[in-house]
Amino acid sequence: MSRQVYIGNLALGGGADVRIQSMTTTSTENVSQTLTQIMRLYEAGCELVRVAVRNESDARAIREIRAKSPLPIVADIHFSSKLAILAIESGANKIRINPGNIGGEADIRRVADCVRAHKIPVRVGSNTGSIEKSYLEQYGKSARSLVESALHNVGILEKFGVHEIVISVKASSVPLTVEAYRLLHKQTEYPLHVGVTEAGTKENGIVKSSVGIGSLLLDGIGDTLRVSLTDDPVEEVYAAERILRACDLRKNYVEVISCPTCGRCEWNSMRLAQTVEDHVFSIRKRLKVAVMGCVVNGPGEAKDCDLGIAGGKDKCVIFRKGEAERTVAAEDAEREFIKELDAMLREKGQEV
Amino acid sequence: MSRQVYIGNLALGGGADVRIQSMTTTSTENVSQTLTQIMRLYEAGCELVRVAVRNESDARAIREIRAKSPLPIVADIHFSSKLAILAIESGANKIRINPGNIGGEADIRRVADCVRAHKIPVRVGSNTGSIEKSYLEQYGKSARSLVESALHNVGILEKFGVHEIVISVKASSVPLTVEAYRLLHKQTEYPLHVGVTEAGTKENGIVKSSVGIGSLLLDGIGDTLRVSLTDDPVEEVYAAERILRACDLRKNYVEVISCPTCGRCEWNSMRLAQTVEDHVFSIRKRLKVAVMGCVVNGPGEAKDCDLGIAGGKDKCVIFRKGEAERTVAAEDAEREFIKELDAMLREKGQEV
Repeated sequence: MSRQVYIGNLALGGGADVRIQSMTTTSTENVSQTLTQIMRLYEAGCELVRVAVRNESDARAIREIRAKSPLPIVADIHFSSKLAILAIESGANKIRINPGNIGGEADIRRVADCVRAHKIPVRVGSNTGSIEKSYLEQYGKSARSLVESALHNVGILEKFGVHEIVISVKASSVPLTVEAYRLLHKQTEYPLHVGVTEAGTKENGIVKSSVGIGSLLLDGIGDTLRVSLTDDPVEEVYAAERILRACDLRKNYVEVISCPTCGRCEWNSMRLAQTVEDHVFSIRKRLKVAVMGCVVNGPGEAKDCDLGIAGGKDKCVIFRKGEAERTVAAEDAEREFIKELDAMLREKGQEV
Repeated sequence: MSRQVYIGNLALGGGADVRIQSMTTTSTENVSQTLTQIMRLYEAGCELVRVAVRNESDARAIREIRAKSPLPIVADIHFSSKLAILAIESGANKIRINPGNIGGEADIRRVADCVRAHKIPVRVGSNTGSIEKSYLEQYGKSARSLVESALHNVGILEKFGVHEIVISVKASSVPLTVEAYRLLHKQTEYPLHVGVTEAGTKENGIVKSSVGIGSLLLDGIGDTLRVSLTDDPVEEVYAAERILRACDLRKNYVEVISCPTCGRCEWNSMRLAQTVEDHVFSIRKRLKVAVMGCVVNGPGEAKDCDLGIAGGKDKCVIFRKGEAERTVAAEDAEREFIKELDAMLREKGQEV
C-alpha cells in the first residue's frame, strides 16, 4: 500500500479511495470563470482540481479561488520558483512542479522550505516531453527513462526535506505509460497520480485513458487519476467515474447491465437501456439493474440484479430480487420499469 | 503463442493480427437488411461477423449471406444441434455453440462430424449467465467456474475429434472478465475471443470494454475481440479499432496526439484537434501528428511527430519531421495544417 498524503482535507493514497482530478481550462486569474468551472467539475464528481499558474496574477488569484472552491486546489507551475512560492503562500493545497527545472539549488531550497512550512504535498513527474536530458541520452524514450527522471526529481525534494510527494510518469503511448507505472510502482511507496498524457479528443482519449488507467487500477496501481481529454474537463470527470466503476473501485452507483442486442431482439431494449442509464448516472446508491433484449441470456443475467427486464415480441418480464414479478406489454415497459426502479431507489432513501 | 485457426480465408491466432468482430442486429432471415449491415460493418473495419440463428429460415439465409458478404460469417446457435448442422451446411465459416446445451451425445456427435467435414472452427465459451451448473455449485460465480465451464465444453468437442476451437469467458464485471481470461490463458493454447459481455450503452460500454479488453491485449492475451455495445454495431467496430490502436496493435493509421488544453492555452486547439481526427480516422497510413495548445509541452511532443502544430496567442508554429517549418497566423492554422497533412499523406500514396 502507498503512503498517504493530504491535499487540504482530502486523503490520497494509503488505502483511501482513488481520487478523481481534473484541470481547469480557464485563465486562472479570471477568478469568476475559474470558480464557475470548478463548481461544474465538483458537481460532476471531481475531488481535486488543478489550475495553471503562468504568472503572478494567476498565483495571487489562488487566494480567492481557494476561499470559495469546494475542492482542494493544485497549482501547476513550470520553470519558476518565485511563482511556486507565491502560489503556496496564496493557499494552494498542493503544487505540481519539477524541481529540476525551477532553478538552482537556492531556488529549490526556498520552494522546499515553503512547502514544508505550509505542510502541503508536491506532485513531481515526467512525461515523454520532459524527460531529463541525461536519462533520455542513457535510456532513450522508455519506461526506464520516465521512471529515472521522475525519481531524480523525487530525490531532489527529499534532499531538501520534502517527503509528502505524489509521482506521475505519463506518456501518450498507452503501453509505454503502463510499463512505466508498473516499473515505478515497484520502486516507490509514494502515492501515484496515473494518466495517459495528450490522449486526444473525447472518443479516442476516453479509449486510451480507459485502457491505460484501467489496466493499472485493476492491478492496484494508482491513487489518483486524471483522464486527459482535449474537451470540456467535465467530460474528463465523467470518464474517470466510469473507469473507476468499471474497475469496481466505486460501489455507490446504479450499475446498468444491458446486452448488445442481436438478431434475436424483438423490442427496443437499446432505447430503454439508454433511458435507464441517463436516469441513474448521478445517483450515488448501490443498485444493479439489467435491461436485456431477449430471453436467451436475459433472465440468467437479470436474476443476478436487484431489478431486471427481459424482452419478448409483445411482452416484457420484470424481475425483482431474482423473482419474475410481472409481465408488462412492450409499449408500457419503459414507464413500468422506471416506476419500479424509482420505488426501489426510494426504499434506499434516494429522492427521485 | 496461440494456435492458429482459419475462418474462411481469415487467419485467427498464432501471431495473426488481432481480429475485430461484431454481430448483426438484424433478423438474419432478412437477407438484404443483414447484408446491408454487414457492408457497413466491413467498411468500418470489421473482419468477421456473427449472425444469430434462431430458426431454420435464419440458418438457410446464411447461404445467400455468405455468397455476397465480404466478411466471413459466424453462426450463433443456442440449444439446437439441428440448426447448427443446417447453418454449417449453408456455409457458415465458424459456429458459436456450447456443446453442453445442444442435446445428448448423439446430437453432439452429429454436429462434431459436420464441423470436421466442413473444416470450420467452433467458438465455445461461458459467460456469467451460462456457467454449467456443476461448476457454479462448486466454485460460485468466479473466474474459476467460468474457465472450468468453458474448458468442459472444449473437452466435449475434443472428445468428438474437433480441435479447431476458439474460447471465450465473458462476464459483465470487468475485473472478473480479466481474471478469467488470465486464468484461461495459462491453461490453453487455443486462440481466445475476448470481450466484456453486456457492457451497456455506448459511453459506459466503451469504457468497460476498453479497460477489460485493453488490459488483456496489453499483456498479449486475445486473438479476436468484440466490443459489446447496446448501440449500432458499427460503433462496436470503431471502438474495437480505437482499442487496438491504443494497445499499439494497429500501425496503419494516423495517430493524433493532442493536449487537454489548460489555462495556458490561448487559441482553439480543441477544435483543430477534432477536425484533424475526423479528417484522418479512416486513413490506413502510418503517420503521427500533434495538435498542442501551448509552448510548454507542445514543441517537446510535436518534435516526435511527423507533423505538429503548437499554438500561441496570435501565431502557431508548424513542425515537420522535428523541424520548426514556419509560423502561421492563428486564424489560418487549420487550413495550413490540413494542407501540410494532406501533402504528407499524398507523399505516402494516399488519395486525399
